[in-house]
Amino acid sequence: MTKPIPHLYAVVLAGGSGTRFWPLSRELYPKQLLKVLGNQTLIQQTVLRVRPIVPAERTLVVTGAGHVDGIRIQLDGAAEVPKENILVEPVARNTAAAIGWAAEALRRLDPDGVMLVMPADHVIPDEAKFLRVVALAVEVAQAGKLVTFGIRPTRPETGYGYIKAVGRRPLLAQGGLKALAVAQFVEKPDLPTAKRYLRAGGYYWNSGIFVWRADTILEEMATTLPKLARGLIRMDKAFGTADESQALDQFYQTAESISIDHGVLQRSRRAAVIPAPFRWSDVGNWSTLNDVADSDRDGNIRIGRIVDLGSRDSILYGEQRLVATIGLKDMVVVDTADATLVCPKDRAQDVKQVVELLRRQKAPEHLIHKTVHRPWGSYTVLEEGPRYKVKRVTVKPGGRLSLQYHHRRSEHWVVTAGTARVTCGERVFDLHVNESTGIPKGTPHRLENPGSVLLDIIEVQCGDYLGEDDIVRLADDYGRTQTSLARWGRGQGEGR
Amino acid sequence: MTKPIPHLYAVVLAGGSGTRFWPLSRELYPKQLLKVLGNQTLIQQTVLRVRPIVPAERTLVVTGAGHVDGIRIQLDGAAEVPKENILVEPVARNTAAAIGWAAEALRRLDPDGVMLVMPADHVIPDEAKFLRVVALAVEVAQAGKLVTFGIRPTRPETGYGYIKAVGRRPLLAQGGLKALAVAQFVEKPDLPTAKRYLRAGGYYWNSGIFVWRADTILEEMATTLPKLARGLIRMDKAFGTADESQALDQFYQTAESISIDHGVLQRSRRAAVIPAPFRWSDVGNWSTLNDVADSDRDGNIRIGRIVDLGSRDSILYGEQRLVATIGLKDMVVVDTADATLVCPKDRAQDVKQVVELLRRQKAPEHLIHKTVHRPWGSYTVLEEGPRYKVKRVTVKPGGRLSLQYHHRRSEHWVVTAGTARVTCGERVFDLHVNESTGIPKGTPHRLENPGSVLLDIIEVQCGDYLGEDDIVRLADDYGRTQTSLARWGRGQGEGR
Repeated sequence: MTKPIPHLYAVVLAGGSGTRFWPLSRELYPKQLLKVLGNQTLIQQTVLRVRPIVPAERTLVVTGAGHVDGIRIQLDGAAEVPKENILVEPVARNTAAAIGWAAEALRRLDPDGVMLVMPADHVIPDEAKFLRVVALAVEVAQAGKLVTFGIRPTRPETGYGYIKAVGRRPLLAQGGLKALAVAQFVEKPDLPTAKRYLRAGGYYWNSGIFVWRADTILEEMATTLPKLARGLIRMDKAFGTADESQALDQFYQTAESISIDHGVLQRSRRAAVIPAPFRWSDVGNWSTLNDVADSDRDGNIRIGRIVDLGSRDSILYGEQRLVATIGLKDMVVVDTADATLVCPKDRAQDVKQVVELLRRQKAPEHLIHKTVHRPWGSYTVLEEGPRYKVKRVTVKPGGRLSLQYHHRRSEHWVVTAGTARVTCGERVFDLHVNESTGIPKGTPHRLENPGSVLLDIIEVQCGDYLGEDDIVRLADDYGRTQTSLARWGRGQGEGR
Repeated sequence: MTKPIPHLYAVVLAGGSGTRFWPLSRELYPKQLLKVLGNQTLIQQTVLRVRPIVPAERTLVVTGAGHVDGIRIQLDGAAEVPKENILVEPVARNTAAAIGWAAEALRRLDPDGVMLVMPADHVIPDEAKFLRVVALAVEVAQAGKLVTFGIRPTRPETGYGYIKAVGRRPLLAQGGLKALAVAQFVEKPDLPTAKRYLRAGGYYWNSGIFVWRADTILEEMATTLPKLARGLIRMDKAFGTADESQALDQFYQTAESISIDHGVLQRSRRAAVIPAPFRWSDVGNWSTLNDVADSDRDGNIRIGRIVDLGSRDSILYGEQRLVATIGLKDMVVVDTADATLVCPKDRAQDVKQVVELLRRQKAPEHLIHKTVHRPWGSYTVLEEGPRYKVKRVTVKPGGRLSLQYHHRRSEHWVVTAGTARVTCGERVFDLHVNESTGIPKGTPHRLENPGSVLLDIIEVQCGDYLGEDDIVRLADDYGRTQTSLARWGRGQGEGR
């Protein structure tokens, strides 16, 4: 179980925005990049969960340009996913296109490749059980099946699609697990239907986690989504030519925006389902945390600094500050650096309406956090006042901000940890803890961490305009890298 | 109505701590110092509400040493209350002692003095109506009565004492108002009793606002609280001698800790009540805000930046950050810089249990705010990290911090508004906006605002210990001033 499974590749779908997990998630910082439970972010958990059976170099991530920086930063450390394994979609076109691209790339690389498709932002606390299901699924996939992971319903949930299994004669059984043929995929049901499914048994939540051979899914696409399949073939033909980048753009421009469930699985006769013995949540909204997080004896999930008197069955989440609650019942309280949410659990799905409201009001809290991540590290706005702004800036070892200047603001830097290499006009010098310098308005400057530990500075900006857009970049280490099918394929072949 | 009433003095009782209004109030920053509703703090509202009929120099405040700085700062500006009018009790001994001291001081100053006794932290939105009641009360008080202000109950409240009036034959009637004799004072009743009072009519909430002649209350004290009355006479005899300060201490050491209600009013036959036509709240806990604050059409009181979907009859309070609420009913949500409270309205009185819990845990959030007020201005901790702390320091025009040094920390200052006069070792120099300086560890230094507008600096502290107690003061403008009965009396006599 803990050895790599030959020809198995992890394909992590990381395109989601996750407005329903606001205020923890933001439009520019979606759920997969967050530590919702535990010390790793959800995408790190997703990648490392299957690490015993899928090595780093066989881990692919498909995402959009907006999140690629954040994902690269997070998968650079313990996860060690090669940068070239991150496939960047020019535009988002739902899961069928993303999976099609990954399958096409995989088949070229390894004609016997098997894909373990996983959304980047699910929580599965029982890793060993999950890996056993994957192992069985790979065997079933080798027989040409499209294997889905079905979750046994614990409540009449109306937010998920359901899979109805053919109960008799499993396709394969092994160690208490069995793979069943799929009788039917069912769209999100209404409440009476969901209750009927729960009573009847044999219906499973569609987890969105799949295992199949790359060639199998491409074959099925050819019959169920012929236009998309033809697009993939055209793109594949351009591989290795000067047109490959253009071919990728063209495919995405014309690709149908449809999910793999609607586009392929519902129309296929090869679908199988393995009822999963593990706890699972798509953390689709705050109330779903109950499916995977441990609660206290009063049924409360408590994360952070919570002082409570007699609350029950509530989700209490404090990011930094103290949260005091009294006598709550079935409530959600989420307290973050710049926004707080309070709602009953059964209204948790309406958080997306709040986010929509904030978007229309152009409130920054729908878009970004107080802490903004950058390729070189991160910054946190500590305070904004009239004509000044205070930030904590953290630079990773070896990290370097762009050589830049500002038209309308001066900056004052005080080093509070590590060593800063400062370029200010013609001078280059090092600043240590408890040393400070000033950057006059209009002077080209650069901040760099030449050391092996994190560099922290406090930056005080003064000026009549302090927007992030007053920045003229003269040179930058982190120009957005063009990642394409071709590069990914070559990257694999050539090693990194 | 809007001319000063001869011989009328305002006596503002400002000893309260207000744990039930946490997290807005803190042990070291009680409710009277807060802007709960409107642009003035409650003590400012209290003093300015009666300003049309009580000039500043006839306004007295009785408080403890812990809050005197905060009160002086707040009553210095628009309220213009002379510093010497603030009576500082050596220890808190409930309202009978505080009122006794004020009455003794007043009688000496003005033998015909009439006291309008008001808690510093009540909200009364209808100023004109309030002043009409005071005018009537003064007339009744001149006839030797102890006049209480009774609030018509709107619900069977069990948190207040009640006053039962003698319904027939008012003592005095005037412009729709009438003063009635008191049949009985009733302790906080249980719920069935409170409901009975509400149905029966003729019962009023005891607002804790009183009007009487100083000589009347002292006469009544002589019979109802003879020991306390004797203590007052002893203290009065020491007035103007070298022993006056000691006499004050001695009085407070031995004074019985009892409220004026229990100690005098319940035992007196001179009590009268005027049913008050104004809205009133002691803001004793968050749910009482409903008695005085305007609500939206869904019954919500919304203060701050609130985004709501469909909540009803809730109190939503955001100090700075965004608060999003969905589908709440009868809830209280209070969001402050360092702590958030969520509870049902009917549990609002249990907030004091949360504060007690925090006190036992030695959590700073029960004691202080992120912003701490000082005689020279205030500071706000923006961030604390390992070996550094960031503060915004605001100094009032003319304000000057002590000449001080620190054993374990250096400081970096950046001016973001106003002009700073900096003493650093032997040097004295001015810093303007966008200029900075560093204060090395161990160097005597001082920060001063020589200008006529607020001075704001950002201070970054670096060191291995950053506690507020690492401060050696070499000179200070704000040594705690000894305020005593004698000084107050003299202050009045001599003018200020």
